[in-house]
Amino acid sequence: MAKDLLNIGGVELNSRLLIGTGKFNDDAIIPDVINSSQSQVITVAMRRVDFETSQENIMKYIPKDMILLPNTSGARTAEEAVRIARLARAAGMGNWIKIEVISDQKYLLPDNYETIKATEILAKEGFIVLPYMSPDLMVAKKLEEVGAAAVMPLGAPIGTNRGLKTKELIEILIDECEKPVIVDAGIGKPSQACEAMELGADAVLVNTAIATAGDPIVMGEAFKNAVEAGRAAYLSGVGGVTKRAVASSPLTGFLSN
Amino acid sequence: MAKDLLNIGGVELNSRLLIGTGKFNDDAIIPDVINSSQSQVITVAMRRVDFETSQENIMKYIPKDMILLPNTSGARTAEEAVRIARLARAAGMGNWIKIEVISDQKYLLPDNYETIKATEILAKEGFIVLPYMSPDLMVAKKLEEVGAAAVMPLGAPIGTNRGLKTKELIEILIDECEKPVIVDAGIGKPSQACEAMELGADAVLVNTAIATAGDPIVMGEAFKNAVEAGRAAYLSGVGGVTKRAVASSPLTGFLSN
Amino acid sequence: MAKDLLNIGGVELNSRLLIGTGKFNDDAIIPDVINSSQSQVITVAMRRVDFETSQENIMKYIPKDMILLPNTSGARTAEEAVRIARLARAAGMGNWIKIEVISDQKYLLPDNYETIKATEILAKEGFIVLPYMSPDLMVAKKLEEVGAAAVMPLGAPIGTNRGLKTKELIEILIDECEKPVIVDAGIGKPSQACEAMELGADAVLVNTAIATAGDPIVMGEAFKNAVEAGRAAYLSGVGGVTKRAVASSPLTGFLSN
Amino acid sequence: MAKDLLNIGGVELNSRLLIGTGKFNDDAIIPDVINSSQSQVITVAMRRVDFETSQENIMKYIPKDMILLPNTSGARTAEEAVRIARLARAAGMGNWIKIEVISDQKYLLPDNYETIKATEILAKEGFIVLPYMSPDLMVAKKLEEVGAAAVMPLGAPIGTNRGLKTKELIEILIDECEKPVIVDAGIGKPSQACEAMELGADAVLVNTAIATAGDPIVMGEAFKNAVEAGRAAYLSGVGGVTKRAVASSPLTGFLSN
Repeated sequence: MAKDLLNIGGVELNSRLLIGTGKFNDDAIIPDVINSSQSQVITVAMRRVDFETSQENIMKYIPKDMILLPNTSGARTAEEAVRIARLARAAGMGNWIKIEVISDQKYLLPDNYETIKATEILAKEGFIVLPYMSPDLMVAKKLEEVGAAAVMPLGAPIGTNRGLKTKELIEILIDECEKPVIVDAGIGKPSQACEAMELGADAVLVNTAIATAGDPIVMGEAFKNAVEAGRAAYLSGVGGVTKRAVASSPLTGFLSN
Repeated sequence: MAKDLLNIGGVELNSRLLIGTGKFNDDAIIPDVINSSQSQVITVAMRRVDFETSQENIMKYIPKDMILLPNTSGARTAEEAVRIARLARAAGMGNWIKIEVISDQKYLLPDNYETIKATEILAKEGFIVLPYMSPDLMVAKKLEEVGAAAVMPLGAPIGTNRGLKTKELIEILIDECEKPVIVDAGIGKPSQACEAMELGADAVLVNTAIATAGDPIVMGEAFKNAVEAGRAAYLSGVGGVTKRAVASSPLTGFLSN
Repeated sequence: MAKDLLNIGGVELNSRLLIGTGKFNDDAIIPDVINSSQSQVITVAMRRVDFETSQENIMKYIPKDMILLPNTSGARTAEEAVRIARLARAAGMGNWIKIEVISDQKYLLPDNYETIKATEILAKEGFIVLPYMSPDLMVAKKLEEVGAAAVMPLGAPIGTNRGLKTKELIEILIDECEKPVIVDAGIGKPSQACEAMELGADAVLVNTAIATAGDPIVMGEAFKNAVEAGRAAYLSGVGGVTKRAVASSPLTGFLSN
Repeated sequence: MAKDLLNIGGVELNSRLLIGTGKFNDDAIIPDVINSSQSQVITVAMRRVDFETSQENIMKYIPKDMILLPNTSGARTAEEAVRIARLARAAGMGNWIKIEVISDQKYLLPDNYETIKATEILAKEGFIVLPYMSPDLMVAKKLEEVGAAAVMPLGAPIGTNRGLKTKELIEILIDECEKPVIVDAGIGKPSQACEAMELGADAVLVNTAIATAGDPIVMGEAFKNAVEAGRAAYLSGVGGVTKRAVASSPLTGFLSN
């Protein structure tokens, strides 16, 4: 059987769980979380990368074989996002970039328009661009058109752990997009990651739910298992939902025989 | 670290996924499903056990090291359930028994009263009794009192694949019962099994969703992974849900530095 | 067109909203709430009825033309419920009785078994018995059999305002019961009362959500409107749910004409 | 007490239920639906307005005192929407316009970008512009900025009757927008309209669910009642949701007194 690989920007991945580096009590746990989650892509806010001292640099906890996905958090416009992306590449962080353009400070919702602009510019410059977005079919199609390597609709506002609150809109993206759909933000429990994968999402990005768990290492593995379970269920074909009961065991005649 | 084992009636189990034998297109697939799901307990309707011919006997597909959980499907009263249980034991099927007493032929809902009666009689006779029930705290406590080894509340009517529709009532059972709570019936997708485990259920029993999947072997493994993910998340401690967004990456000041 | 009346124990009612007397900051508001809600049946805990002083007696706030539905709250067994019911009738509170038998002090869940017992005794004594119950089809049928005038399944534990959390089980009762199904407990918002009626419930009982509202008089009317809306929708026939969009306005050709 | 009026573009309305003219089996029923729903604003697709024959003209069923809300359905771009709007005004249909710009023919989702463009142009020309949109806070703020009189986020794709599937996103709009938020599309039952109003929506637009009901006149009144109920509940203040039960009646000591 052919392996079920996720292809982003020409790179083939075994893992469909992307993780983040924010909010850990102690960043030293990150290598163990990478290991337990078997994630191959990790996002890191450029702001946290200290290029002058090695002391508190988040980078020292990230193994060399991970694909770095620097993100542009802090950017309020396309232009700012573009500048951060270029800085990241110049600093040797590779050519993957997660676009986050956020001007709303309360709900931290992405600005889809600015995100399209930044995606277009950066894709042309050879970046593998993964834009974080409010789920909106027209925007997703536009992002694909201007060169996004995937689209990353939010399930719920960042860090809320509220789950797949935009499920109906994400399902439409899954149905219509040609590029991978990666659910990003809002996923608070493994069951929610599993559900996203059952719906047909290509991958999920989970940060807060792992980083703030009682035991992030255990939770990293839990998400790995949940993502694999959801993917397998999707590929295998989930059975139909019925209204009336359907016996799994025969119900009649046993004692009358 | 101590292993996280499930104790039912004094027997310690690694797996928290119980499976069934009903509804497979071809029973010959059962050994592979047992293997992929790593389940250690399998339920089988007594009615399907043919003691005279070996031809179509479901038993030939069940490895010797599985714990058999014969069920009393077809019973409409406590008395009938008791007779079936005794037959099962006499036929060498061991002393585990899943009580199903169902008089309603449309929704296949269990009769909690008759179930208590049958549980009491069979527990006194040395059976390890797992009663299938409508989720009801008073009934669950009574079942524990009369000797049930676990309680098996339904998530939704049998075979509907509708998921955890009685979640609030099951959560109360999880909160208040001393014996294991095993969610039985209704679970249609791995994400739903995962959710049940995250809530603190001790195990789940899944039949229809595996047996009728496009690929039951793959689906068996998917449920195994989902159950493990949910259990790990429960043990690790799931993070809190918030209303407003909480940044996982720093949002301010990057470009102004 | 024939009027759409609710028949309980031979009494025909225009209103399908039953209300309660508990938890008001000031009981003096009760007449206005009765008026705004247009309810015709009001439940009152026998414990709150002071037969010796008229001072703080809840009864003085209830107009003579309301149907009193004394309840047996405080009863932990069928026997206690029966005694309370008889006291209520002896005290001139009529022959309607709402059975509440609750031994669990945390979730305040009814004991269905004791409730059946009390219902049987009191129905034989000529009471119009409305039993509060955990939603369970077998129990509902038994209650009908022993003489209940209606069944009152809980939507969620008393006072939680959590809504119709047992929807699937209540739908089965609606489908199968011959006597009126009155959703009692858990309804926290008019939309939830409306939803219960759309599903086909015959009535709802609302107490906490009205009594603890910012403005109980306004909320009483809101529930009246919501219940009427849900009932009308049920009678009119709710339209079907579709997965793909269906235009309400023509989508093509306008400008090309 | 001051009346609770809805102000759109300087016009004060008593009714918070906007209705539509599409999908009725027989348009002759429209006057009765207007009457039963007490709606004051009705949307009509320009395409359906026949300016040459009076025969099948939808306009003849709309009373003079209704506010006409012509919509631009059929428009695939801002430019087309603008042309339709101008035609509507030129034809004497007033200066209210509902912008619908839809290029996706499967889910009929609005194109938020084109909608902003059309809104800006038409607001400058003196129209009272009500844009139909995918719920997105950044877009809603932009629409307000360029002159929208209200924003009309979808609850679910048009005509699906699926309800408030974008609830979390709509709540954010309600929280942050200064102009009225009118939930448009997807509302299939009165309970869903009621829920939207409880959340704080300023109004709802319902077409399919009324037009395709078994009895559209009865359903029109049901929606009126549900909208009023939800509005009243919102104004009155809905009570809090609790996890554990809270007795509405006293639970102890009755018989021990």
